[in-house]
Amino acid sequence: MTKITMKEIAEFAGVGKSTVSRYFNGGYVKEETRLRIEAICREYHYQPNSVAKTLKAHHSYQIGVITPSIDSRTSARVLTALDEQLRLSGYTPLLINTNHNQIRELTSLESFSRMNVEGIILLATQITPEHERIIHKLRLPVIVLAQEMAGAVTITLDDYTAGYDIGRKIGTARHRAVCLLGVSENDKAVGRTRKQGILDGLKETGITQVDFLETDFSFAASRQVVRAYLKDHRPDCMICATDNLAMAAFKELHTAGYRIPQDVSLTGFGGYDVCEVLTPSLTTIRFDYEREGRTAAELILEMIAGNPVESVKIGYTFIHGESVIER
Amino acid sequence: MTKITMKEIAEFAGVGKSTVSRYFNGGYVKEETRLRIEAICREYHYQPNSVAKTLKAHHSYQIGVITPSIDSRTSARVLTALDEQLRLSGYTPLLINTNHNQIRELTSLESFSRMNVEGIILLATQITPEHERIIHKLRLPVIVLAQEMAGAVTITLDDYTAGYDIGRKIGTARHRAVCLLGVSENDKAVGRTRKQGILDGLKETGITQVDFLETDFSFAASRQVVRAYLKDHRPDCMICATDNLAMAAFKELHTAGYRIPQDVSLTGFGGYDVCEVLTPSLTTIRFDYEREGRTAAELILEMIAGNPVESVKIGYTFIHGESVIER
Repeated sequence: MTKITMKEIAEFAGVGKSTVSRYFNGGYVKEETRLRIEAICREYHYQPNSVAKTLKAHHSYQIGVITPSIDSRTSARVLTALDEQLRLSGYTPLLINTNHNQIRELTSLESFSRMNVEGIILLATQITPEHERIIHKLRLPVIVLAQEMAGAVTITLDDYTAGYDIGRKIGTARHRAVCLLGVSENDKAVGRTRKQGILDGLKETGITQVDFLETDFSFAASRQVVRAYLKDHRPDCMICATDNLAMAAFKELHTAGYRIPQDVSLTGFGGYDVCEVLTPSLTTIRFDYEREGRTAAELILEMIAGNPVESVKIGYTFIHGESVIER
Repeated sequence: MTKITMKEIAEFAGVGKSTVSRYFNGGYVKEETRLRIEAICREYHYQPNSVAKTLKAHHSYQIGVITPSIDSRTSARVLTALDEQLRLSGYTPLLINTNHNQIRELTSLESFSRMNVEGIILLATQITPEHERIIHKLRLPVIVLAQEMAGAVTITLDDYTAGYDIGRKIGTARHRAVCLLGVSENDKAVGRTRKQGILDGLKETGITQVDFLETDFSFAASRQVVRAYLKDHRPDCMICATDNLAMAAFKELHTAGYRIPQDVSLTGFGGYDVCEVLTPSLTTIRFDYEREGRTAAELILEMIAGNPVESVKIGYTFIHGESVIER
């Protein structure tokens, strides 16, 4: 009797090769398909167990993904695109949320490396020496998203140039009492690079005096910070480091009786769907987060295949909303 | 020499017991702490390996969580609360996103059961006979969220009563051209129970004629459905099955020249932060998603401890926004 191949089993059972592979890996297969594959294997004396072992030894088909949040539009867009792209190649992403806790981030890197994942994708908020030490020690492909890291494959946004564009836009519209609502410098990408771009863009158009308000990424904390500021300041423009911060500022400005944009201009970064629904619609930067996620998936698969890869910078679109006017 | 205990190692090293436990489990511990613990173990001839093995054999401290989406405010709120609550007990949730793909949902149940997690939490979109077959076969604690399932521990929202309240509100405000924007009946909780509550509440107040529009949960598809409907209909009220659908309707009504609420009333379900920022603010139902997540964590830990648990129904708050008026 000739030996049957997996491809033939798939043909005889009238299903795809991936279904047969899933069957041998102990994954989910419909009851009737399972019975059909079993019957074919019996008939042709096929040895599924040895095959399963070989398959398993080579590939877990799992990628570990570490995210600082599952409660943000930004990470949701990156993660959803990443997920879909990995699934196309038969990989399942396993996600750990650290909720911005750094110890959890470091622990997760080590947990994943023990869990037989084939690679790790880290959505980073900051890169400390501890991160560098652990990442360089891992004997696994690793990709770092959103933050720069020397010696690692990174996918970053063009935060500087996007910030610069916003700064120039506000400066040329002749605002004079500019407030920048941003986050801690511990976040290099948003807290430093994006901020520096904004300040340089403003400076280029003659604005060197800017009030800086620091908040975290949350809606609630940002509302408090803005509310306190508005008690004794009267800005004619608020530049916000994310769309979420811009929505918090929107709410507080509205409550304090400001008209947008007549009394105060407002800008964000992100390009969420919901910002179109605001009245007036928000002037903001739309980063291509979907491309960021897809690229992360493509690069980690290249690394797993042993191919050389390079770091990537992701572009953006300037969204001209109705929330900025010339003074 | 007396034998040293883990508690004493922690004291001598000046760290918590959980840090020492993490060290023996191969988890992340700061470099200097690691060196200190190593020195203490050497001095007292402590045998870390056997301890590590015992700890590992009993607990992986991992819970598998299956979600239909990471791109929805609802699941983000449930998952974040669930995550924090599990972390309090030293457990790490491992998340798989199925992106509403049912095969992935079934596969994930089986993958997790092979991965040595201690329990599984399923954020369900529908329960098919295949789900029931697999869940009853698993030899692990399982909790089903958001959908009813016979013979399983479930945590569900009070969709019927919340829907009924919205239906009565719209009926008593004397709307006569009511449109209901909802989802497929495959989703029992939202597509059937919530819808039935709305229809019964409307009926109670004399409204039996309702236009039903079916969409999925996405912003883009919902906008298309509403746009097509508005071409040859003139509703004086749109009841939307989620806040996301309400925002899509908001955008299309606005574009078509309707004033909210003067020309058309609008309601949602969800109670997202962002709905406060809409002008006018949205009349909606705020479910306690954080409680849903926390309860899921508490119940799965009880089940792991071998304690008996019962299914739970989660309440809601009626948010009286500015998007509904009396006709």
